[in-house]
Amino acid sequence: MFLPFHTRYKKMAAAIDFYFDFSSPYGYFAATHIDELAAKYQRDVEWHPILLGPVFKTTGSAPLAQVPIKGDYSFHDFERSARFHGIPYKRPGAFPISTQAAARAVLWVRGKQGEDKAIKFAKQIYKAYFVDGINIGEPMHLLEIGHHSGIDTTGLSDGINSQPIKNQLKAEVDLAMARGVFGSPFVIVDGESFWGFDRFDQLEAFLRDGKI
Amino acid sequence: MFLPFHTRYKKMAAAIDFYFDFSSPYGYFAATHIDELAAKYQRDVEWHPILLGPVFKTTGSAPLAQVPIKGDYSFHDFERSARFHGIPYKRPGAFPISTQAAARAVLWVRGKQGEDKAIKFAKQIYKAYFVDGINIGEPMHLLEIGHHSGIDTTGLSDGINSQPIKNQLKAEVDLAMARGVFGSPFVIVDGESFWGFDRFDQLEAFLRDGKI
Repeated sequence: MFLPFHTRYKKMAAAIDFYFDFSSPYGYFAATHIDELAAKYQRDVEWHPILLGPVFKTTGSAPLAQVPIKGDYSFHDFERSARFHGIPYKRPGAFPISTQAAARAVLWVRGKQGEDKAIKFAKQIYKAYFVDGINIGEPMHLLEIGHHSGIDTTGLSDGINSQPIKNQLKAEVDLAMARGVFGSPFVIVDGESFWGFDRFDQLEAFLRDGKI
Repeated sequence: MFLPFHTRYKKMAAAIDFYFDFSSPYGYFAATHIDELAAKYQRDVEWHPILLGPVFKTTGSAPLAQVPIKGDYSFHDFERSARFHGIPYKRPGAFPISTQAAARAVLWVRGKQGEDKAIKFAKQIYKAYFVDGINIGEPMHLLEIGHHSGIDTTGLSDGINSQPIKNQLKAEVDLAMARGVFGSPFVIVDGESFWGFDRFDQLEAFLRDGKI
């Protein structure tokens, strides 16, 4: 009650929900920008690792890179978009990969060490995959990344394989789909949905003006 | 040989190939911007009406608006993107529609009255559909639009149904697919491909700098 109005207002604005799959290059691009963008407009970000596999089953979609003709263009667009936005990017050798272990790992860290640590870990996983060429589909590599971040790797290893974390990820994906999420990155804020890193210009206009 | 160098250079830069389907809202958005953008960088534009139907058969895609979950988002995104870019837009009552007649009509006008007249006609068809709510899938409405533009409507009516124009459209679509076109809008310039109105920022950077 003794906080100045501006500070109280900042606390009241709802967080931005940020959905992403760890094998999504555009999700990675978004991950390099979302926190700075949100901070500019006094918003927090809740990071939601999801799996596009079950989502694509519902929408009848396929991973971009596997679609005839479109696939070749996509690989080119990943690299060109990275250069255009000044984002470090190296095409991963293994692509796409299974991202269940990575998503579960982040959920486990969030539960044990809080949102800030989980976000930092998620950023490190994305960088490992899309900059350093590490196959983050392998739990072993997730443990190495966690080790460098001071995460309890024994706990993390058990956590990735635990039934509660598996259940939690499934529930997270179901909830995302129920909210209309069908791709990566996907942002929901104040009931407004934005699909794709190429909608971040509209997302910023919405955060600034409260409407478009 | 007596032209100043700058003028000669302008003539030498290759035209931009602009592919679009008349039922594509993002194609319409692009159509409102492409000529001005090209002129800014001393380029001509060759307008290529194509049909996404045969393209989607090859890529296994479906019209955006018919995909579960994604469809609802798309209609919202059409309207929001139009507002964001300041483009007049009204959701058509009939959507999507067959665009064979419209594409053939533009090809016929191009053959009989040249590229400039065909481009002007194409813009009027897009506006009729996405601003005035006219079902351009009906040849009758195409003839009305043509009539207002001083086009010989008897010739146009015959042209839309003529075998040579049918063959020409089929060949145009085949050629587009052979060049890697898989959506609308799609732009190719100096061997570089750009899919989507949301890549016009990268297209402009490429036209300006010759690279990204």
